[in-house]
Amino acid sequence: MIAEILAVGTELLLGQIANTDAQYLSRGLSALGITVYRHSVVGDNPGRLREAFFQALERSDLVIATGGLGPTMDDLTKETIAEALGLPMERHEPSFAAMKAFFDRLGREMTPNNEKQIWFPQGCTVLRNDRGTAPGCAIEHEGKTIIILPGPPRELQWVYDNQVVPYLEKRCGRKFISRFLRFYGIGESTLESVLADLIAAQTNPTIAPYAGSGEVQLRLTAAVSDAEDADALLDPVQRQIEARVGEYLYTDRWGSMAETVVRLLAQTGKTVAVAESCTGGMIASALVDHPGVSQSLLLGVVSYANQAKETVLGVRAETLERYGAVSEQTACEMAEGVLRISGADVAVSTTGIAGPDGGTEEKPVGLVWIGLAEKGKPVRAVRHQFTRDRNYVRNSATLAALDMLRRSIAK
Amino acid sequence: MIAEILAVGTELLLGQIANTDAQYLSRGLSALGITVYRHSVVGDNPGRLREAFFQALERSDLVIATGGLGPTMDDLTKETIAEALGLPMERHEPSFAAMKAFFDRLGREMTPNNEKQIWFPQGCTVLRNDRGTAPGCAIEHEGKTIIILPGPPRELQWVYDNQVVPYLEKRCGRKFISRFLRFYGIGESTLESVLADLIAAQTNPTIAPYAGSGEVQLRLTAAVSDAEDADALLDPVQRQIEARVGEYLYTDRWGSMAETVVRLLAQTGKTVAVAESCTGGMIASALVDHPGVSQSLLLGVVSYANQAKETVLGVRAETLERYGAVSEQTACEMAEGVLRISGADVAVSTTGIAGPDGGTEEKPVGLVWIGLAEKGKPVRAVRHQFTRDRNYVRNSATLAALDMLRRSIAK
Repeated sequence: MIAEILAVGTELLLGQIANTDAQYLSRGLSALGITVYRHSVVGDNPGRLREAFFQALERSDLVIATGGLGPTMDDLTKETIAEALGLPMERHEPSFAAMKAFFDRLGREMTPNNEKQIWFPQGCTVLRNDRGTAPGCAIEHEGKTIIILPGPPRELQWVYDNQVVPYLEKRCGRKFISRFLRFYGIGESTLESVLADLIAAQTNPTIAPYAGSGEVQLRLTAAVSDAEDADALLDPVQRQIEARVGEYLYTDRWGSMAETVVRLLAQTGKTVAVAESCTGGMIASALVDHPGVSQSLLLGVVSYANQAKETVLGVRAETLERYGAVSEQTACEMAEGVLRISGADVAVSTTGIAGPDGGTEEKPVGLVWIGLAEKGKPVRAVRHQFTRDRNYVRNSATLAALDMLRRSIAK
Repeated sequence: MIAEILAVGTELLLGQIANTDAQYLSRGLSALGITVYRHSVVGDNPGRLREAFFQALERSDLVIATGGLGPTMDDLTKETIAEALGLPMERHEPSFAAMKAFFDRLGREMTPNNEKQIWFPQGCTVLRNDRGTAPGCAIEHEGKTIIILPGPPRELQWVYDNQVVPYLEKRCGRKFISRFLRFYGIGESTLESVLADLIAAQTNPTIAPYAGSGEVQLRLTAAVSDAEDADALLDPVQRQIEARVGEYLYTDRWGSMAETVVRLLAQTGKTVAVAESCTGGMIASALVDHPGVSQSLLLGVVSYANQAKETVLGVRAETLERYGAVSEQTACEMAEGVLRISGADVAVSTTGIAGPDGGTEEKPVGLVWIGLAEKGKPVRAVRHQFTRDRNYVRNSATLAALDMLRRSIAK
């Protein structure tokens, strides 16, 4: 099945937002084994929308239009496509009831222009939207499928996941179950070459690599009929992959490195503290991103200045003088210090040169020491040399510190 | 002038990346007074690229193609467009010299496939790329302009800013100078309605609102000939805007709220400390994002747990018990505590309920107290009630705290 995504919105053509809807849908469709051949964006202009829609319909089996379902006069997607296909608009009573309930919950009055959102092309399947007032819809027309979705990403993603995927699965007679394997410490190209034969040979499940910032993911997708068990297809492939690169795998569930650490902390009941210099609060913030960390994170100290390293963390003046702030010794004393004052089970520390200035031949920009202190164990620190810019160095150091933390907690 | 952006890359159609290049170019072109009517994305497929290119060329005066200029066999953009226009490819010697110098600097060997990047359609203007090995090019063809740019955003942005803008300015006989006014504490719709008459009346400079996360920007763009002074056009409009909403304006330079605070700290020589609960390191991290903060940021404490509030910051057990961790009193004692132990001139603190759990009727999710302590002045705290999700609450609290800090430093 060949698909095409047509986004409608002048804000995209003005560059006010990026077309992340197209990215989300493209990822999703490729997991369903549907090939996307084109994305297009047009403004809130019926003539140009009609032209682009006809072109898309001619080329593709499935056209997904996004945006332009709001209550204002500018929002013309449904009306323009219905007219192009010669379909009259009809009022959809269940959507009216849902919209009324939505406004009641917010304690707000429903305005007349909102009613526009519950009119749909005759004969379509309405796609419920639990995150907003504009439902989507699916139209079957002369062997082609047209799906119209709301533009706001939160709404689009909900409608896609909960309404479009089941619709397409029903149409294809198959279900698609994905599992994400997330790796740290191995590059995308290395991972791909180590698994090249598996990637080439597999058809069900499919194996698709995904690069993130400093992390690599593999998506395994199994296509199954109702009666079949996706795990029975996915498990053996995951075991084959783990046999080769299992030491880099940190989770086979959805969720970032920080989320994995927070989950492990909750599972083990361990407590943690953080002392940050070059990462300047990023590690603590990455942990606090996830609810449920309040029992586990006892203390974070951002000791960007040497004075704070001494007075708050108890790093010795002698250490700073002799080895410098960016050194194995300082990283160790920072981790020990924050472990001591917090009473946590495990503590991690960072000290490095994020750049762009401050590098020397001996200690170049990108050098980061990461320390780890655990109750009743000898403290240690690991040297990293990261590249690129300040942000990349700080992000890389954050990930490396979280991974060190994760390994120590998981033990 | 009507423009269209055509991105080439299968990674876009697989959803591995979003088309941020189109966003960047659209913003830039609209500042030049050039209207963008369409974005398209096709994969690394010469047939579909040729078809999309001809359609774009028919509709538009300016077609900007992005991506597919790399050294591999998949990279076909230049070759396909040259063939479509009937132009032979020619080797560009200055680009060869530049590429050789680039590889020499990296200490790497230039491989034969890299040479592909220095062949260009006959008669084009080569657009130098100081951030990579693939230069872009501009072709004038039967009254239309075709510009081809490298896909990696860092490279595209450099080539656009430094090569394409001057090229288009020369072609239009005008220069475009933009100034960004950044506001905090006023919503986009309020700002637009307060300035509606100015926005409607202005033609040179143009005034365009830009919404960000919790912040609002206005872009003023003046079109001037070589001899004219852009400031003479921009200054009076900025003064008119400031007369109405000046209290919300925090900078007329490029740069975020955190960057503005870092700049003010450097200018005034003041030092700062931060005590964070619900923001969990985000304020410190936002400051450390910007080089040059090392002299100013003395200490950050992430006291997510009550124990840390007491033992590290010296918040009284009685205060926590009587008023709770999320209270005016606790916010004040946190700010005082971190001011005292750091010896900084000014300190800011946050304590709140980021959600999704933990809210009560009296203290709902989204409630955040922000405290401010300054040497020799009475400490104070401000109550905020933010909405939406955990991330939004934390981001909003970070911005509000930085703005409070900014106002105190700027005084």
